[in-house]
Amino acid sequence: VGPPVFTSDRLYEVTPPGIAMGLAWTSMGGASLYVESILESLLTSSSKAGLQRTGHLGDVMKESTTIAYTYAKAFMHKTFPENRFFEHAKLHLHCPEGAVPKDGPSAGITMTTSLLSLALDHPVEATVAMTGELTLTGKVLKIGGLREKAVAAKRSGITTIIFPKGNESDWEELPANIKDGLTGISADWYSDVFKVIFASVDEKKAKHLW
Amino acid sequence: VGPPVFTSDRLYEVTPPGIAMGLAWTSMGGASLYVESILESLLTSSSKAGLQRTGHLGDVMKESTTIAYTYAKAFMHKTFPENRFFEHAKLHLHCPEGAVPKDGPSAGITMTTSLLSLALDHPVEATVAMTGELTLTGKVLKIGGLREKAVAAKRSGITTIIFPKGNESDWEELPANIKDGLTGISADWYSDVFKVIFASVDEKKAKHLW
Amino acid sequence: VGPPVFTSDRLYEVTPPGIAMGLAWTSMGGASLYVESILESLLTSSSKAGLQRTGHLGDVMKESTTIAYTYAKAFMHKTFPENRFFEHAKLHLHCPEGAVPKDGPSAGITMTTSLLSLALDHPVEATVAMTGELTLTGKVLKIGGLREKAVAAKRSGITTIIFPKGNESDWEELPANIKDGLTGISADWYSDVFKVIFASVDEKKAKHLW
Repeated sequence: VGPPVFTSDRLYEVTPPGIAMGLAWTSMGGASLYVESILESLLTSSSKAGLQRTGHLGDVMKESTTIAYTYAKAFMHKTFPENRFFEHAKLHLHCPEGAVPKDGPSAGITMTTSLLSLALDHPVEATVAMTGELTLTGKVLKIGGLREKAVAAKRSGITTIIFPKGNESDWEELPANIKDGLTGISADWYSDVFKVIFASVDEKKAKHLW
Repeated sequence: VGPPVFTSDRLYEVTPPGIAMGLAWTSMGGASLYVESILESLLTSSSKAGLQRTGHLGDVMKESTTIAYTYAKAFMHKTFPENRFFEHAKLHLHCPEGAVPKDGPSAGITMTTSLLSLALDHPVEATVAMTGELTLTGKVLKIGGLREKAVAAKRSGITTIIFPKGNESDWEELPANIKDGLTGISADWYSDVFKVIFASVDEKKAKHLW
Repeated sequence: VGPPVFTSDRLYEVTPPGIAMGLAWTSMGGASLYVESILESLLTSSSKAGLQRTGHLGDVMKESTTIAYTYAKAFMHKTFPENRFFEHAKLHLHCPEGAVPKDGPSAGITMTTSLLSLALDHPVEATVAMTGELTLTGKVLKIGGLREKAVAAKRSGITTIIFPKGNESDWEELPANIKDGLTGISADWYSDVFKVIFASVDEKKAKHLW
């Protein structure tokens, strides 16, 4: 009862557009992994599109940002063709904390969500976390450490966790005390993620934002 | 009882706009860490924006400058939209001394303050030092070595130290002899830092500086 | 008594504009360290400004050239705003001898002097040598090896040596036989160096040179 008890894993109690919470798997267990995207300069009809990334990212994770950026652009073009955000947005994607080395592909759907949240000017619900590798066509691939990630998610006050369809059996096998209070949603394609996160986007508004 | 006794840790007795004092944590203890920003060339309507950095910075600290630069631009755009400084400023950020290798994310708020001080043409009070990692959205993250940094700050004639909200318990635990003569201010967001440093900025002037 | 006996440490008996003598500290003792700056191409209203550097410089010393270049531009803009030299000068800075690896920040004021000498078309007196790290705001920082550098300066026929204010106690402690015949001038800011080197600059001429 009362407000949730947040630990230091949670940076944001309310997440502005552009922020999404992922989950990392380390030798120390699971941990929250925020992805932050913001506009690096004013969006104008003459500003030049691009993506800069920081956060002590390893090579695989750097490629993940590239895949997420390509996919997000393609997704927007297909779903909201009138939204021209990515044509002129000079973006900066960062994963705090800067001193912690990070690698691996499993933040793919989190990065994509962060970029789309900014493009749609729509915040991600602060109680949702997600983990999953993304392919260029939007397929969500299996990840490791779901158990540790679920524990970290709960510790961070998360109530909904999105994971790859390929991890469904891992989810089934989780003990009840971990799953208790946590809604698990599996995603086969990024569109499954989108439906959960951006269910309440006003399509008319989204099309004419930028 | 007379002016403070400055040791070699203090480079500036009066800090011109663009200079901010941070605090480093080394194997030898704490130390002052200045961040200097200046215009590399004349600011004109056709000069090209950019940021050059020097000071024997490691990869994490280089990323810190990038984050500080993006954040400072976004902050100015939101807070002083009429101030066009960053649209045309060719900047150079340096951390003396050049032979000392430096790394880590904890100069984030100091770098941002240095850049904003230049953009607002407003000097930072020479008796204030600060330490804190910054995220892209302006969240101030916990740092290490607050005790050693507080000792270094006092040695440098500092009377006000700004640190992350996440370090509040570290601050509480500091012995009275260290805290004596030192006002500690915790910051959860960069806006908390801004309020302390730039309280006396003339908003009208700031908007029409550049 | 006759003319001074020059050793191989001295490259120039008369130094053209753009040349300044610094002092290095090596495992073999002190040594003269020339900094040479010249225009890489004809200076015209359409030539593009820039700085190329050579001389087997290590990373710290490369950063030193960058700092010297930024500072020299800012200094000229402030002191001789009518002089447009740096807006169009494509420069090349070299430190002979090319086979000798060089590093460290202590040639900062020498590099700045070399660049200003060229911009003002004013030669540096051949009997003056200098050593000191420079910050972006023009502060001159303490260096190592003043004793060895003073010995090298004398060996090279130098009669005036400029060193950082932070090394004043080192200077005081030098034995009389080293200081004999050598005038030591300490500098807290680059403006102190400027006053010594460029005392006889014709300000009117300097403003309208380029």
